[in-house]
Amino acid sequence: MKRARVGIINVTGYVGVELARLLHQHPEVELTSVTGRSAAGQKLSAVFPHLASIDLTIEPELGEVDLAFSAMPHKESAVVIVPLLKSGIKVIDASADFRLKDAAEYEHRYNVTHPAPELLKQSVYGLPELHRPEITSAQLVSIPGCYPTGAILALAPVVKGGLIEPEVIVDSKSGTSGAGRAPTQGTHYSEVNEDITAYALEGHRHLPEITQELKQLRPRQPLSVTFVPHLTPMTRGILTTCYATLSPGKIPPNERGREELRELFQDFYKDKPFVRIAETSPHTKHTWGSNMCLIYPTIAPDTGRLVIISCLDNLVKGAAGGGVQNMNIMLGLPEVTGLQAPAVYP
Amino acid sequence: MKRARVGIINVTGYVGVELARLLHQHPEVELTSVTGRSAAGQKLSAVFPHLASIDLTIEPELGEVDLAFSAMPHKESAVVIVPLLKSGIKVIDASADFRLKDAAEYEHRYNVTHPAPELLKQSVYGLPELHRPEITSAQLVSIPGCYPTGAILALAPVVKGGLIEPEVIVDSKSGTSGAGRAPTQGTHYSEVNEDITAYALEGHRHLPEITQELKQLRPRQPLSVTFVPHLTPMTRGILTTCYATLSPGKIPPNERGREELRELFQDFYKDKPFVRIAETSPHTKHTWGSNMCLIYPTIAPDTGRLVIISCLDNLVKGAAGGGVQNMNIMLGLPEVTGLQAPAVYP
Amino acid sequence: MKRARVGIINVTGYVGVELARLLHQHPEVELTSVTGRSAAGQKLSAVFPHLASIDLTIEPELGEVDLAFSAMPHKESAVVIVPLLKSGIKVIDASADFRLKDAAEYEHRYNVTHPAPELLKQSVYGLPELHRPEITSAQLVSIPGCYPTGAILALAPVVKGGLIEPEVIVDSKSGTSGAGRAPTQGTHYSEVNEDITAYALEGHRHLPEITQELKQLRPRQPLSVTFVPHLTPMTRGILTTCYATLSPGKIPPNERGREELRELFQDFYKDKPFVRIAETSPHTKHTWGSNMCLIYPTIAPDTGRLVIISCLDNLVKGAAGGGVQNMNIMLGLPEVTGLQAPAVYP
Amino acid sequence: MKRARVGIINVTGYVGVELARLLHQHPEVELTSVTGRSAAGQKLSAVFPHLASIDLTIEPELGEVDLAFSAMPHKESAVVIVPLLKSGIKVIDASADFRLKDAAEYEHRYNVTHPAPELLKQSVYGLPELHRPEITSAQLVSIPGCYPTGAILALAPVVKGGLIEPEVIVDSKSGTSGAGRAPTQGTHYSEVNEDITAYALEGHRHLPEITQELKQLRPRQPLSVTFVPHLTPMTRGILTTCYATLSPGKIPPNERGREELRELFQDFYKDKPFVRIAETSPHTKHTWGSNMCLIYPTIAPDTGRLVIISCLDNLVKGAAGGGVQNMNIMLGLPEVTGLQAPAVYP
Repeated sequence: MKRARVGIINVTGYVGVELARLLHQHPEVELTSVTGRSAAGQKLSAVFPHLASIDLTIEPELGEVDLAFSAMPHKESAVVIVPLLKSGIKVIDASADFRLKDAAEYEHRYNVTHPAPELLKQSVYGLPELHRPEITSAQLVSIPGCYPTGAILALAPVVKGGLIEPEVIVDSKSGTSGAGRAPTQGTHYSEVNEDITAYALEGHRHLPEITQELKQLRPRQPLSVTFVPHLTPMTRGILTTCYATLSPGKIPPNERGREELRELFQDFYKDKPFVRIAETSPHTKHTWGSNMCLIYPTIAPDTGRLVIISCLDNLVKGAAGGGVQNMNIMLGLPEVTGLQAPAVYP
Repeated sequence: MKRARVGIINVTGYVGVELARLLHQHPEVELTSVTGRSAAGQKLSAVFPHLASIDLTIEPELGEVDLAFSAMPHKESAVVIVPLLKSGIKVIDASADFRLKDAAEYEHRYNVTHPAPELLKQSVYGLPELHRPEITSAQLVSIPGCYPTGAILALAPVVKGGLIEPEVIVDSKSGTSGAGRAPTQGTHYSEVNEDITAYALEGHRHLPEITQELKQLRPRQPLSVTFVPHLTPMTRGILTTCYATLSPGKIPPNERGREELRELFQDFYKDKPFVRIAETSPHTKHTWGSNMCLIYPTIAPDTGRLVIISCLDNLVKGAAGGGVQNMNIMLGLPEVTGLQAPAVYP
Repeated sequence: MKRARVGIINVTGYVGVELARLLHQHPEVELTSVTGRSAAGQKLSAVFPHLASIDLTIEPELGEVDLAFSAMPHKESAVVIVPLLKSGIKVIDASADFRLKDAAEYEHRYNVTHPAPELLKQSVYGLPELHRPEITSAQLVSIPGCYPTGAILALAPVVKGGLIEPEVIVDSKSGTSGAGRAPTQGTHYSEVNEDITAYALEGHRHLPEITQELKQLRPRQPLSVTFVPHLTPMTRGILTTCYATLSPGKIPPNERGREELRELFQDFYKDKPFVRIAETSPHTKHTWGSNMCLIYPTIAPDTGRLVIISCLDNLVKGAAGGGVQNMNIMLGLPEVTGLQAPAVYP
Repeated sequence: MKRARVGIINVTGYVGVELARLLHQHPEVELTSVTGRSAAGQKLSAVFPHLASIDLTIEPELGEVDLAFSAMPHKESAVVIVPLLKSGIKVIDASADFRLKDAAEYEHRYNVTHPAPELLKQSVYGLPELHRPEITSAQLVSIPGCYPTGAILALAPVVKGGLIEPEVIVDSKSGTSGAGRAPTQGTHYSEVNEDITAYALEGHRHLPEITQELKQLRPRQPLSVTFVPHLTPMTRGILTTCYATLSPGKIPPNERGREELRELFQDFYKDKPFVRIAETSPHTKHTWGSNMCLIYPTIAPDTGRLVIISCLDNLVKGAAGGGVQNMNIMLGLPEVTGLQAPAVYP
């Protein structure tokens, strides 16, 4: 069988280049075209020496492909995607343009007019652990944000099960690669090293994604998520610590409850190859370079409060790897194809 | 006036050596004696080349001093302190031995028998922002834990003011120096770099300190603190993010509420030289090497929940610097003496 | 064809666990047995959660295998290897026991009696770029040290070509994983972060390896290598900067000379899949997790002196990956099998 | 006596802000004016929260001062300095404009026309360890580059003593703060972390400074310095490793020679408060935040070659601290005033 031809629009950011790394190693597709604006005309390997084994030139326009990833910034991404869809190409979008089903919410959060709100209905929120059936037949899939991936996977089992009170805290700690490759004061080594700070305290754009997806799991259940992201001195990795109060009479706040909780999570994710329920408090390092999301649910002994921790590599499971996982499903390939490399440790 | 002679018991850990750095630069006391076990007999500067300007030999036993710091591990610290107190020396203890007023709680948390429970009544919890009057006349002061320092200072104004509901989340992110100088698997560079993990999920020893001090501020108010510490790839610094629900009818969950909150904090700490209410989300880097604790209270726009962030250098304000601040008060010196160096940035 | 069964002795160090990661992903061999002392009886995935996909228990003794890697410390390694060789098993040794052909030099440098000097003749120095033919038929191959791998590959073309004067400087900068997984004061995060230091100024054990191999390339040419290793705040990676004076009348110290040099290196390594001559000054980051060694030769414009830089991942090309490359050759597999993953960047 | 009023032109870079930190703590001068372009009108503490204790507004133009530091970029610095000198103000320049005595060399290296070559004669190269007498009476002092400071101090004793052959290697490893505060691709956290690279292989601008100063120490001695700087994952610190061949018949290449070397260095720097001859291989960490330069000379046991290592904090001794040291001398204050804080370790 001929391998599907795959392209990457805007390969020069961290998500784009990580897609190139994963797709190049993928045994069932062929990376045939990559685009970039400022770097157009250069060899991919000249800009990214670690990809010297890929013999592609960065082009101004996408060549002929069967499936395209867009790693364009939001708003611009929808604009380049519209004609691709019209010509029948499958598209996986790494931007925020098709994550939120509510165009008004998108416009409020991103402070732009949505370039293609008519596509919101057909686009699928590409979290395979929740939406595998829709992804199978989708033409347009939107890769979830890196924070939402970790937060939603951590909370889905207990929200779905109706096991918690509405007030939820999501405290996330992220490495700097999530902020993108363009240099800024906030990602300068001298500023990030030996520093932790909370940011987006006026409201982070990823919050409505988290809420949208969790609410779908139990629509009538009220839910109020407070989300605070933190920038930490790492390149890759997000650790998310979720806090909630257990609803009375369901899971007991003790050792037996911890066991029940564990079983609930194992059951919820039993056929999901990229979620593993960790045996002990997980480390972001254990996901470095891999597509795995580790989840550890527990109950605080002193207060009986629910604490759920998730870890992932924001550029893999939280972006490019999640994208390839969607691609596998869209192309009818085994979900794990090309994504089974363990984390690189230490 | 003759300068007070000050000594450090167990100078060879990170708290001990940081005390040496601060006391050496202190204009009103003289560091005259330092002890250590394994390193006894060596010059202090041979073990710690950055202290080459201090001409002291590490001794097996403390010389004659007016005030002693103990940087011994818990349990052992109380043992060495008892005879010092009997001979009339003022003592500042960096261990956990005299932090908790309830000996049973101490014995439960640290899994040892308290060596000197009779001293718990006279010892003072050395957080000058809350206990300055008692510290002034104390002979034995206990330096608070590094996590409690940040958590208590962040929450004190709203607990005291009765402004929050009982359920409080304290999510702390710490550098590795808090784990001490002895090498362990968990502090190996290759394990810590590019990693974040939550730990002590079975209950951290610092939690009862936090609860003890906050409860004293409003004894009848129920309070249930869930505390999760995280290890992050930094050497120094703790950033603590506290979450609570505002009690209805007090502080409005809007911009005006944010202003009121800010004023409340500024008022609460108006005479406290080492707490500053930050104008924007604070960075641990802004406290590196300094005795300052930065606090930033705000209200999450999407949920109206209270979020309070504090930052400090765990070895300075969270240990040695806090100790020197206590010393200044005990010796009748201006509280800020020898502690005014700004953070070293970047 | 049945896949060869491969085992790892002492899987619990950083080289052992990296071998497990690479061998698990290898399509032509099967990792069937791993041993360890302190961790014997535990699941490999319990000790190393990133290897959860490997279903092996750490055993006290090696099971039946066709080829064994030893990741034991020096001296102990030779002891476990002797009986394996007798029973006809192929062995690849990651320790220093069979690197130096001169037992007296080994005993001087490592300050132990060589446990099996009779094997030195048959053992092969496992640098495939120099010794591929001997490796093909070897039963015992010794993986070069991490520093020698980078230094020898950088200098081999110019030594072989007789292009430099005898006095050579090798200045290496290494991450901490090369120091092993056991925690020490020198690898404590708080000590390594924000620090660089030179070490082994009294003479590093890897120096005679560098000299042994370079001298073989041009036995009559005098050679005097000064080698200074530095510890730097990274987990993985060695960058080696070599300095030498060009012999007169061969390569001109100008732009044309730079071109000639480049061609010389490209020619020398033209069939070597894991050496790439970089187009610009290389970064250790461009080798992270990969088996590639990048080399960049140039001539300092101000002095005409030769400067050659090499980069590699000390745990891959400098240890486990180099070992797997040897295994491929010993088993008659394509040299690159299982080793083609690009570096993980950023 | 009235304290001298001191100002900083362009306080918003890393050298400027470090000057502010040091001058604010200085007991004998008063920081009265700071300028900046983009940040003009803002409180200094709003831009740099760690300097909250300094109550100054960033101004577009310098106020009335007795001495000014310029932290402007090269070329622009000379332009702002000319009128200050005319009005009789003492000036200390942190730029490269007055470091090289040869205007043609400056113009070649920096690729600009020198704005004030007529001042080169009166300006003094502000390395107090070599030029204290001229600094005492100078009106214009130029702070040496960060790399030259470490390299010159390391090599001065042996060059002056005529103890080495002409060919010298200077291999420097620097943190990122030396590259300035403006964000660039090369200082992005995700690029710098877990990376080391050599740069400026086409010739670094600091090389002629090194040569200029060393040649002055022994004008007839030929000298050929190859200098390769490396960027390492640290914020502060430069470690420089210098290699040279000992001239025959002077210092023996053995333990006695090491002792003689050590005495030579101790003697050379015996009255220099900010150079210390280290007892063991020094760490950049031992200089973090301090004005100390540590030097460790030794002889490689295998080759008898001279190896000299120096460490300093590039923002203190290598820039702002060196500047304050010059100021003290220019103002007739004790050289160490305001500069005695030990390094912050760990």
